[in-house]
Amino acid sequence: MTKSVRAYAAKSPNAPLEVMEFQWGELPRGQVEVQVESCGICHSDLSMLHNDWGMTQFPFVGGHEAIGKIVAVGEGVDTARIGQRVGVGWTSHSCMTCSTCMSGDHNMCATAEGTIVGRHGGFAERVRCQAQWALPLPEALDPLTSGPLFCGGITVFNPLLQFGIQPTARVGVVGIGGLGHMALKFARAWGCEVVAFTSSDSKRDEAMELGAHRVLNSRDDAALAPHFGTFDLIISTVNVSLNWPLYINLLAPRGRLHTVGAIAEPVALIAFPMIMGQKSFSGSPTGSPASMAKMLNFCERHQIAPVTEAFPLSEINKAFDHLKSGQARYRIVLESDWK
Amino acid sequence: MTKSVRAYAAKSPNAPLEVMEFQWGELPRGQVEVQVESCGICHSDLSMLHNDWGMTQFPFVGGHEAIGKIVAVGEGVDTARIGQRVGVGWTSHSCMTCSTCMSGDHNMCATAEGTIVGRHGGFAERVRCQAQWALPLPEALDPLTSGPLFCGGITVFNPLLQFGIQPTARVGVVGIGGLGHMALKFARAWGCEVVAFTSSDSKRDEAMELGAHRVLNSRDDAALAPHFGTFDLIISTVNVSLNWPLYINLLAPRGRLHTVGAIAEPVALIAFPMIMGQKSFSGSPTGSPASMAKMLNFCERHQIAPVTEAFPLSEINKAFDHLKSGQARYRIVLESDWK
Repeated sequence: MTKSVRAYAAKSPNAPLEVMEFQWGELPRGQVEVQVESCGICHSDLSMLHNDWGMTQFPFVGGHEAIGKIVAVGEGVDTARIGQRVGVGWTSHSCMTCSTCMSGDHNMCATAEGTIVGRHGGFAERVRCQAQWALPLPEALDPLTSGPLFCGGITVFNPLLQFGIQPTARVGVVGIGGLGHMALKFARAWGCEVVAFTSSDSKRDEAMELGAHRVLNSRDDAALAPHFGTFDLIISTVNVSLNWPLYINLLAPRGRLHTVGAIAEPVALIAFPMIMGQKSFSGSPTGSPASMAKMLNFCERHQIAPVTEAFPLSEINKAFDHLKSGQARYRIVLESDWK
Repeated sequence: MTKSVRAYAAKSPNAPLEVMEFQWGELPRGQVEVQVESCGICHSDLSMLHNDWGMTQFPFVGGHEAIGKIVAVGEGVDTARIGQRVGVGWTSHSCMTCSTCMSGDHNMCATAEGTIVGRHGGFAERVRCQAQWALPLPEALDPLTSGPLFCGGITVFNPLLQFGIQPTARVGVVGIGGLGHMALKFARAWGCEVVAFTSSDSKRDEAMELGAHRVLNSRDDAALAPHFGTFDLIISTVNVSLNWPLYINLLAPRGRLHTVGAIAEPVALIAFPMIMGQKSFSGSPTGSPASMAKMLNFCERHQIAPVTEAFPLSEINKAFDHLKSGQARYRIVLESDWK
């Protein structure tokens, strides 16, 4: 492989993305190199572009929902082969030896490397990652629309898996967007009773089509009241403060309010109703390779795909503008069009 | 049975407790009547006496950690017999038919009746409850010290049971008092690594004797830092705000910070570290009859008893003063001395 790679990069916070060429060294031991066919845009790409979390290195190349074919394998890789189609998500490397990795929780490894943190991501000709973090894409899944499964998808799939949610559960999803729309599909296929919470009337019918049995207006307290005490799990995909006491009240005994949205301001919970109902509040990050493999298998069996809008990679700035507009339905995917 | 019962009652909030005689009707169907031998004092007796929760009815008879022998059984009771020694805890009745009861979570029944809420508790000659809420006391447990198991004990035992805590877990206990001291004993017998958090130097040695492998000063941030990321479960037994971000940081991936103390002010949690470590915050109330039976069996097998200080029931006001002083080691029990 040539060691020169083209990518769309921002030179400074919120700068327009421009083609940049960078040099790569030898492919490190244990890693694979993937020729990117498509790459989803995640809200965290935007947060990183803005340097919202103070950890962005410029020039910045985002992209952590990449699909492509393996074009090179490093030494010591014996589970991946050239030509194999894979997906690369938020995490590109974990130590594989700490107690957390050894327990199967590689996504929570204290030294896990983010695909777009301190290194270059998937808005590029090629992207690299540790072989175990390149998950084979099942044949039946479309390489042009499956990228979002690898960050947004696994983020909302994983709570169902981690907390042993059963198909008898009543599951609510707050925020019907890039993550929420996949959560509806997963929960429906999981066999659960699915309720979408949205304040957008325009999303009502869409939420039903995506898998919701019912849609509740999250700003209509009166409409919500009859549902108090009925939810086993509510997954919030938004990163703004909710009416927390209200959502705690919506939980059944043993219920869990779970956020995958990193709300900046403190989440203020009243202990008493949580005590009385043995209720939990929790969060979780993406998922381990094993969880991702289970998700991909589940998607294949249940024919689940993200709902995407495609832009050519060369129109990445237009795609980011569309993301910022809040009008995306529901996840934007960039298709490689390098010449 | 005579229908006249003597009890220690407060006529108004925080009034001294005085002997009162009241009349009981027929023993309702499904209930048992228990001649009280001893009764623990719980902080919630004090809260109810002060009408802190706005639900106290006066004259108020507290006491919901009662041990005694069944002296009468109502119609339809076929699992309890006269002469049997039982304990009566926080809950005296649940509907037995709702989905929550039918799922075994009788302690969270929406219509559950509290032993001292709108009715008279165990600071009396006799107390009544639904037969299923009178748990047989194993022979090996001391009737004069076992009362506190039935509220304080089950409150800290139940999280171990409910959340499937394994003996490989590292468990922290915040607040080494009436509840916390029992939590230490339970967690130690459960096979866990046990750490006591206390800001009281005087309790350090006692905590070790009670079962802690280690004691950490909860106000010494520097001493706590090396323990970040190591706790699978932290049970907080206090009802004041903690340094929540610090305790979340102490949790290992998948860890749970669990409060059984009803902190009045909102618990302010930062979502990001909870997301990154798949961490939970939760609460729980006492336990179901089935959980209590398991606890009693566990106590018998592991020779676990609350550490108590005894007062004759006739000195109940002195006992309450001792409770208020914060000097009780660790749970106060009143021994019936009616003449």
